[in-house]
Amino acid sequence: MTNNASHVPLRVIPLGGLGEIGKNMMVLEWGDDIVVVDCGVMFPGEDAPGVDLGIPDVSYLIERAHKVRAILITHGHEDHTGALPYVLPRLNAPVYAPRLAHGLISVKLRDHGIHQMADLRVLEPGEPVSLGRFEAEAFRVCHSIPDAMGLAINTPAGRVIHTGDFKVDHTPVDGGMMDFARLARFGEEGTLLLLSDSTYAEMEGYTPSEQVVGDALDRAIAEAPGRALVATFASLIARIQQVIDAAARHNRKVAIVGRRMVDNVAMARDMGYLTAPPGLLIPLRKALRLPQNQVVLITTGSQGEPTSALVRIANGSHRQIDAQPGDTVIISASAIPGNEKVVNRTINNLTRQGARVLYDKIATVHVHGHGAREDLKLMLRLTKPRFFVPVHGEYRGLAAHAALAREVGVKKERVFVLEDGDALELNSESGSVVDRLPARSVYVEGGHTLDSDSGVLRDRKAMSQDGVVVVVVGLDRLNGAPLMDTKVVSCGFMEDGRDGELFEKVAGRVYDALDSDAGASPDWGRVSEKVKKLAGELLYKDTGRRPMIVPLTLKV
Amino acid sequence: MTNNASHVPLRVIPLGGLGEIGKNMMVLEWGDDIVVVDCGVMFPGEDAPGVDLGIPDVSYLIERAHKVRAILITHGHEDHTGALPYVLPRLNAPVYAPRLAHGLISVKLRDHGIHQMADLRVLEPGEPVSLGRFEAEAFRVCHSIPDAMGLAINTPAGRVIHTGDFKVDHTPVDGGMMDFARLARFGEEGTLLLLSDSTYAEMEGYTPSEQVVGDALDRAIAEAPGRALVATFASLIARIQQVIDAAARHNRKVAIVGRRMVDNVAMARDMGYLTAPPGLLIPLRKALRLPQNQVVLITTGSQGEPTSALVRIANGSHRQIDAQPGDTVIISASAIPGNEKVVNRTINNLTRQGARVLYDKIATVHVHGHGAREDLKLMLRLTKPRFFVPVHGEYRGLAAHAALAREVGVKKERVFVLEDGDALELNSESGSVVDRLPARSVYVEGGHTLDSDSGVLRDRKAMSQDGVVVVVVGLDRLNGAPLMDTKVVSCGFMEDGRDGELFEKVAGRVYDALDSDAGASPDWGRVSEKVKKLAGELLYKDTGRRPMIVPLTLKV
Repeated sequence: MTNNASHVPLRVIPLGGLGEIGKNMMVLEWGDDIVVVDCGVMFPGEDAPGVDLGIPDVSYLIERAHKVRAILITHGHEDHTGALPYVLPRLNAPVYAPRLAHGLISVKLRDHGIHQMADLRVLEPGEPVSLGRFEAEAFRVCHSIPDAMGLAINTPAGRVIHTGDFKVDHTPVDGGMMDFARLARFGEEGTLLLLSDSTYAEMEGYTPSEQVVGDALDRAIAEAPGRALVATFASLIARIQQVIDAAARHNRKVAIVGRRMVDNVAMARDMGYLTAPPGLLIPLRKALRLPQNQVVLITTGSQGEPTSALVRIANGSHRQIDAQPGDTVIISASAIPGNEKVVNRTINNLTRQGARVLYDKIATVHVHGHGAREDLKLMLRLTKPRFFVPVHGEYRGLAAHAALAREVGVKKERVFVLEDGDALELNSESGSVVDRLPARSVYVEGGHTLDSDSGVLRDRKAMSQDGVVVVVVGLDRLNGAPLMDTKVVSCGFMEDGRDGELFEKVAGRVYDALDSDAGASPDWGRVSEKVKKLAGELLYKDTGRRPMIVPLTLKV
Repeated sequence: MTNNASHVPLRVIPLGGLGEIGKNMMVLEWGDDIVVVDCGVMFPGEDAPGVDLGIPDVSYLIERAHKVRAILITHGHEDHTGALPYVLPRLNAPVYAPRLAHGLISVKLRDHGIHQMADLRVLEPGEPVSLGRFEAEAFRVCHSIPDAMGLAINTPAGRVIHTGDFKVDHTPVDGGMMDFARLARFGEEGTLLLLSDSTYAEMEGYTPSEQVVGDALDRAIAEAPGRALVATFASLIARIQQVIDAAARHNRKVAIVGRRMVDNVAMARDMGYLTAPPGLLIPLRKALRLPQNQVVLITTGSQGEPTSALVRIANGSHRQIDAQPGDTVIISASAIPGNEKVVNRTINNLTRQGARVLYDKIATVHVHGHGAREDLKLMLRLTKPRFFVPVHGEYRGLAAHAALAREVGVKKERVFVLEDGDALELNSESGSVVDRLPARSVYVEGGHTLDSDSGVLRDRKAMSQDGVVVVVVGLDRLNGAPLMDTKVVSCGFMEDGRDGELFEKVAGRVYDALDSDAGASPDWGRVSEKVKKLAGELLYKDTGRRPMIVPLTLKV
């Protein structure tokens, strides 16, 4: 099947993206060479309150930094690129990215002040690059951002195909057709391993083309009695193009609203991914002076983000724009799991102000960017892999994709459902999981990292439920007897005014307990514990609640 | 149209359920008589961390307690009954409820120790009760709990029809057919006002019958290679009946798992809402000894509730049951908005253990209990109301239902989209909103109530993001000079060990600031504020984060 089949196995280690979505990172290792596919972040939401984002645990790579030949990026989404600013300072390997991703990454690295030190190169489809004993080539796929690629990586053990994120779209709006011919050739030549996108592996049928959304948007914009406001992902350039095209067809001007949207649209135009007839895109202040039915606004806020333009318009806090009767708002996106409530709230608030809101549940104003089962079967049939590892999915998606692969003929024992940290070794005949690396998310907040099982996060969650009660005692440094009244204050526990009597009781009982414990050699190490236990028990008995207790001992 | 049309208007005041879902309560007032429809709770989730539930603000009713003739309950769901234990002690009006709801409410009131004081009566459909100048009669509707009723309330100003929660199901599993004839007669006789369920007013078409789920469940249970585990709402008796029937058809025994499910099934059997052939329902320990393909387990946990049976099975912490390869788990419910992540997690965990999971997105294993647009049109056409107020919906559902009503011929000026607190007055000719009452949720936690804009909740949210930092200063009571080192401790702010240097700096700067402020007449009132401001600024400058600062001043 492959040239130079070797005893040295190929190691395949997902460090992110398998089992829980986000922070995609796949490690391929053969002998002294390692290449990494993608370097993304995840957003933990309420699982880790106060945390900005999570990145993969890259200890394995740091320990083998001399072997890492390159980080290959499939496309510009955050869950494939967002960890680069945190990883590159510790692992300065060359980064190869398709053109648009390259542009977005440059901006990101500049924002973090590390652009100078990074070795960032453009990866053109069809132009192979040598990376030690690996040779990597990108091929076009369709996704919800332009310039999305899959990767064909030749290794001495055989060819690995990584699909990146993909859908099958025969009428793509941004012209980026999937390279079926190339994929078929890979299949003919022989594919050792396919790593394929499992996001919608449970969904029957085919994912509809971006085209169908264009038709729906066109109708909605044509029929909007007043203004049309379209909120979508700032990276969904094809969608923005369709809105621009519809506006042009129906004699409306377009203004872009929201910092991130303005920046993305500017970059996309500069790089040639977005085109608009001269004079169609106008500044917001001019658009607001036109007759309402001659206006389309493209805004941020499709996920109900609190600081986004659409949400501020919805709750009346946007400086320039108020929602009004006659507005047609199109939320051209679907709510990412976890965001349903805030998206809901935005829709309600817009409706309260008289706007008509169209969104995915009631109109075809969004399709997503990942293949459904029939699309995934096509990928398997084209590439004809010997081994299959589903990637980019929650566990249930991975499991469904694995079952699908077996359905289309990949042998059961050559299909592996891995989770982050599983180290798979393959040779031409067989494979097995040989190791389990630590692969928990590393959280980033402010300038620091935090382990995902950090006590800090547990404390925050506890305080968010029942608040915190601080108990201050001042003890004689010689015998541990209390020399001042115990002070008890709280935050987030109870409404002011209600806690007086209760806290007096707690303060008194703590005082008495410490007084009776006073003696020749006070056990300082255990004072905090005693105070915590006693105060906690008293508060629970009286209120049924368990605030965080913070004991403070002053030695006087 | 009505007998004794009068100058006295009918007042219609929603106190809960309109605009945001949950805590349903509708007030109807004419002259010296008030009746209340429903008395429910809502669950605020992360909007109010640590809070158990929210109830309507019933101040309006307390101020007019002598006028309140009855609280009428449409059906036994928590969002229609759950506030009774908190309201009845302050407003002891007679409560009329359909049989099953009556049973569930009795249990609830007993749990709260107020069963003795309450006047709780059964409301049979077709048997009118006189309530001052009102006369109320219940009529059957279909919903996702047996014994669901709508209400026809005659008032001197005309008849009001409240649909309760309803769907149109021509093949209901629990036999409770909607009383179309009665509704048609109301329409012929004349209906002043229709209050109708708006939950799915944006959904095109018809809501499918419970029957279609029965067919899918039957197939899934028949084809399950091993055990079948079905998780559904404990109140969805019709669904449980269908599972029992399917099990009987396919020679499987059934065991009920999870306290709430066990209790509900027992009550439903006692009251005749659930039937099973003798010997079909067996204790769990017996079921676990049978061959796997002869077993069906019905469990709690369809919403990913952390303490539920299914979730504990999924994460390996259930004492008796482990998920296994060969298990077929059917989640026969849809995720209530806000619960998507925990339901997701449960599905993933079950899949990890080899179970096959069927759920609403990939199989027809659930239909909901509310009408879609065509069903709602039928209700409007049958009842032919003069005035229309959509109820039981988020704002967007209310708005969509209002538009629907206008579509089928209710005059625009007689359709009112109200939100909680809006007081509508109607006479036979016209209506208008005459007042706006306070209608924020009243939160309940432990034994206390909390205003929804309470500072306690704001503090909890702040602490959940960046934790809390406590700053203790000991000042000379005469001149306010610091007499001891400032102490700084934190919780949920930063990992231990990292904060040492930073806190020393903050402690030192606070000390210096207070020292320089010391003087003849210290401004005690402002010390806390000064400490808070200074510490906050220093911490933000150094970390970019804003922990809650709790200043503590000891006068020494």
